[in-house]
Amino acid sequence: MEDLIVKAHGTPDPKIDCLDHGFVRLIDAMPRVSYGESVVTCDSAITQAARVSYGDGTKKVNEDVGLIRYLMRHRHTTPTEMVEFKFHCKMPLFVARQWIRHRMASVNEMSARYSKMPNEFFIPQPEDLRAQSTSNKQVSEGGVSLDDAEDWLCEVEEHCENAYKLYEKGIDFGFGRELARMVLPVNIYTEWYWKIDLHNLLHFLSLRCDAHAQKEIRVFGDAILELIKPLVPHVIDAFDAYHPLRGGELFSSMEVDALSKLIRGDAEVELDSDNTREIAEWFKKCEKLGIVS
Amino acid sequence: MEDLIVKAHGTPDPKIDCLDHGFVRLIDAMPRVSYGESVVTCDSAITQAARVSYGDGTKKVNEDVGLIRYLMRHRHTTPTEMVEFKFHCKMPLFVARQWIRHRMASVNEMSARYSKMPNEFFIPQPEDLRAQSTSNKQVSEGGVSLDDAEDWLCEVEEHCENAYKLYEKGIDFGFGRELARMVLPVNIYTEWYWKIDLHNLLHFLSLRCDAHAQKEIRVFGDAILELIKPLVPHVIDAFDAYHPLRGGELFSSMEVDALSKLIRGDAEVELDSDNTREIAEWFKKCEKLGIVS
Amino acid sequence: MEDLIVKAHGTPDPKIDCLDHGFVRLIDAMPRVSYGESVVTCDSAITQAARVSYGDGTKKVNEDVGLIRYLMRHRHTTPTEMVEFKFHCKMPLFVARQWIRHRMASVNEMSARYSKMPNEFFIPQPEDLRAQSTSNKQVSEGGVSLDDAEDWLCEVEEHCENAYKLYEKGIDFGFGRELARMVLPVNIYTEWYWKIDLHNLLHFLSLRCDAHAQKEIRVFGDAILELIKPLVPHVIDAFDAYHPLRGGELFSSMEVDALSKLIRGDAEVELDSDNTREIAEWFKKCEKLGIVS
Amino acid sequence: MEDLIVKAHGTPDPKIDCLDHGFVRLIDAMPRVSYGESVVTCDSAITQAARVSYGDGTKKVNEDVGLIRYLMRHRHTTPTEMVEFKFHCKMPLFVARQWIRHRMASVNEMSARYSKMPNEFFIPQPEDLRAQSTSNKQVSEGGVSLDDAEDWLCEVEEHCENAYKLYEKGIDFGFGRELARMVLPVNIYTEWYWKIDLHNLLHFLSLRCDAHAQKEIRVFGDAILELIKPLVPHVIDAFDAYHPLRGGELFSSMEVDALSKLIRGDAEVELDSDNTREIAEWFKKCEKLGIVS
Repeated sequence: MEDLIVKAHGTPDPKIDCLDHGFVRLIDAMPRVSYGESVVTCDSAITQAARVSYGDGTKKVNEDVGLIRYLMRHRHTTPTEMVEFKFHCKMPLFVARQWIRHRMASVNEMSARYSKMPNEFFIPQPEDLRAQSTSNKQVSEGGVSLDDAEDWLCEVEEHCENAYKLYEKGIDFGFGRELARMVLPVNIYTEWYWKIDLHNLLHFLSLRCDAHAQKEIRVFGDAILELIKPLVPHVIDAFDAYHPLRGGELFSSMEVDALSKLIRGDAEVELDSDNTREIAEWFKKCEKLGIVS
Repeated sequence: MEDLIVKAHGTPDPKIDCLDHGFVRLIDAMPRVSYGESVVTCDSAITQAARVSYGDGTKKVNEDVGLIRYLMRHRHTTPTEMVEFKFHCKMPLFVARQWIRHRMASVNEMSARYSKMPNEFFIPQPEDLRAQSTSNKQVSEGGVSLDDAEDWLCEVEEHCENAYKLYEKGIDFGFGRELARMVLPVNIYTEWYWKIDLHNLLHFLSLRCDAHAQKEIRVFGDAILELIKPLVPHVIDAFDAYHPLRGGELFSSMEVDALSKLIRGDAEVELDSDNTREIAEWFKKCEKLGIVS
Repeated sequence: MEDLIVKAHGTPDPKIDCLDHGFVRLIDAMPRVSYGESVVTCDSAITQAARVSYGDGTKKVNEDVGLIRYLMRHRHTTPTEMVEFKFHCKMPLFVARQWIRHRMASVNEMSARYSKMPNEFFIPQPEDLRAQSTSNKQVSEGGVSLDDAEDWLCEVEEHCENAYKLYEKGIDFGFGRELARMVLPVNIYTEWYWKIDLHNLLHFLSLRCDAHAQKEIRVFGDAILELIKPLVPHVIDAFDAYHPLRGGELFSSMEVDALSKLIRGDAEVELDSDNTREIAEWFKKCEKLGIVS
Repeated sequence: MEDLIVKAHGTPDPKIDCLDHGFVRLIDAMPRVSYGESVVTCDSAITQAARVSYGDGTKKVNEDVGLIRYLMRHRHTTPTEMVEFKFHCKMPLFVARQWIRHRMASVNEMSARYSKMPNEFFIPQPEDLRAQSTSNKQVSEGGVSLDDAEDWLCEVEEHCENAYKLYEKGIDFGFGRELARMVLPVNIYTEWYWKIDLHNLLHFLSLRCDAHAQKEIRVFGDAILELIKPLVPHVIDAFDAYHPLRGGELFSSMEVDALSKLIRGDAEVELDSDNTREIAEWFKKCEKLGIVS
């Protein structure tokens, strides 16, 4: 009998540090044990489940890798639900708030009603402060003045210290922890156990490892991806090759039309749309394809 | 055609204020319109769905109210999924964090990445500060020194002001909103649209209107209950009569044995358990039944 | 006050017949009522929810249609969860078995334990019998001998009659309905109430209106699409324009590379893959683009 | 390193036969491996997750068993989501149809579109045929004439043979499998992989091992319970002691009132209800308690 996590990582609970005090630790996987050669990685659980659906017919035509790539390419996602991962994670509360929106997962979080929150706050490096994007209001990008950053972070550190003192003062007064914690800022660290199947995890990773995700959650996404990659290598290869938020690219019907005309020799690259944002997105894809420079 | 929400509340979007700046506003319901007499309240959607399951057989035996009570008593919960409510809510962030754990709901929350958070923080009244419970570490109960409370809340107000200034300073420096918000404490207000079916809402209410819930979320639970009660009156009656966290009472197998012996005349009320907490819970139920005083 | 369903369809419960005895009937929608001009279609509930997320910033830049198209293009799907539809459907049992795999929905089905199943079986038209596909084992396509079809369907009709007689005989013997029904073939009709939010419904429609779906469920998918289209017109337009299973097209990283080389003038259309199925899919896309003929 | 399934069952994939051709096979569990003494059974994953929520405070007060019993008694169900089981199951289609209604699970079923269904039908023993209940229309109970049963089952066998011949004839004509299968009765066997977390599995078991469940699914519920019991022994003990559909008993507010009066010496056992069914249920509980005979 072999432990697939130990085989992949050399330890039964591999851990990657994230930000200044956070981490992701892989603590379990299903399948986890291998007898003989039948279960080489967790990928095996996917082909096993797919074969019950597709029956004998698949035996000769598809090798395991081909089957996984086929399932991923055509979004036959139910077999990937057959793989499950469990993590122990520690992250700032504002990261946890984005993370928890992924509902199809099981979570046990440290309770600020029951336990006293530890005195640990996320303080970014000055060079990690980013400017508010003007083109996409949801993201930050580009540099800011390092002097401003250092100045502000200094105040942030002091602010967190004060917040924690006020928190402790409330507890010392005998107030309920559930009340005293109201003064804590959202860069305080929390931790949880998080269990999720591979199908839902890939959805999480597609969004949270993407350039549009806030950098502070992206480091957690990247860490998770690194931890699971050796356990489901062919799935991740296919994910990177086919998913529109990874290496793949999704074209709208108007873009397919434009592409088609272009290839047939039409000189002008025009999209049948009067939406400026959509036109800008089309030009970005054209650049990627080397059509415009 | 009649609008069931207007019929129940006299307005198409009834609202109840909660805490110092929060609210719950009922903005939609399914079913919402009534033609003639067939849909008297949203209760009707439940019996309609139940009757497709149980077929003609139910027509003569059960009246609508009896059918609803039967379904609720025996936890035939799928017909209650046929009723849906949508709310617009505003609550402190630490309340939102408890609320969001109810996964079977749809949420659109104000984005602190996209929008600037408004300067509104929850500041409790001094008499609303409660002491940390010693028997149940998860709750707070009992009074605290009003002087301590006033003193502490004074500092909290100042702390929130400072936090907001620091937040605005970060924004003025041009930092991304997603970064600047890290200094905001969890008593800041957020808001969201929340849509949930009645089955999942009853589960939410059973937990969040319960004495073990934090008081600051309980006021929202109570407001929701008040808003939906005239729309599903028989469901709420049955909920209050049968649910173990409402008027009902759940006895364990050992408690049923003890109860049985007691009724048959055994003098001593003893539970077959060496768990002190379980024995304490049994005595509490005995008190309620008037067995011990 | 206006009823959006009546406005869209001229009746409060529009119905489309499907197959020989089946149907889909739209019986409710959220939102359903409109006061004044604010809620023109159910699309309005999506922009309303999106605006709470994105805040004031969106007001000037995006018109409603542009916002919906943006959300759909970038898979910001949570606002579409804010729209809910309820249907009454009747379909053969083998169709119901495919349908029920969509878990994020509420269902109340006729119970064969409680009710006697009606004597209604799906009998296709001879010209609707299709041959087993040889290239894709999961589908049927192409014509079959009409004589064979008529011959076989004759026997099927007799078989269903016999099955129903045997079912009734079991019931007459006093056997439980839950046992007697075991002889009924899967082309018998069942019915249910089905409630689902728009996000999950679009996922359902993308799969079930697709050419790879069995034709007998596709007619239900098409009927549903027709029923909701006038209620969420801009969503459906965007769905048809952007979804990779509708008018959109998804290219893998290898296909993007090949496309790019091709456009830059490389003579040979070659995909970096040794997977025959993947290469065949690439050539199909090339045909669509007019690259190969 | 130890395999918890092998430790519990002596084999890595224990199997229990159900009905004439069905089975349940436990093929995986999370957690599955144990290093040293820390993970004794899968129960350990629950206390591990609970302790992250409740923090250090629980260490001294609660032993593991006490903590599990506390969580189960008070329906703190999230830690039980941390345990996951995977089964390979084979069952008649009408059983599968009831089973699949439990949505919070992952399923990969044999596809009748892709594969040819095997010639295996559920044929009950004559003594297993039960009469339609007159009091509860949803269930069957009590004996039937064995002669009738034998007579009917003889016809059922022949009917299944004919159905399968007609199915094969359709396939031989070259019709798609998805069409040919429409003649197969619902007592044909299908199989699937089924993965579910312990919280949702307990809900499944509470309903499907209950006397109100159809006997043909109950045997599968019982088999699953037997397979997991040695893996989560304390959870199952608590489940049997506390769940209202197991050893526990739920009393409505009116029943608690009646019980209270009765114990205080009121001669008459009367329930404040004019619902005959509710009164009957109360008398049944009274019998269980030895109040009435």
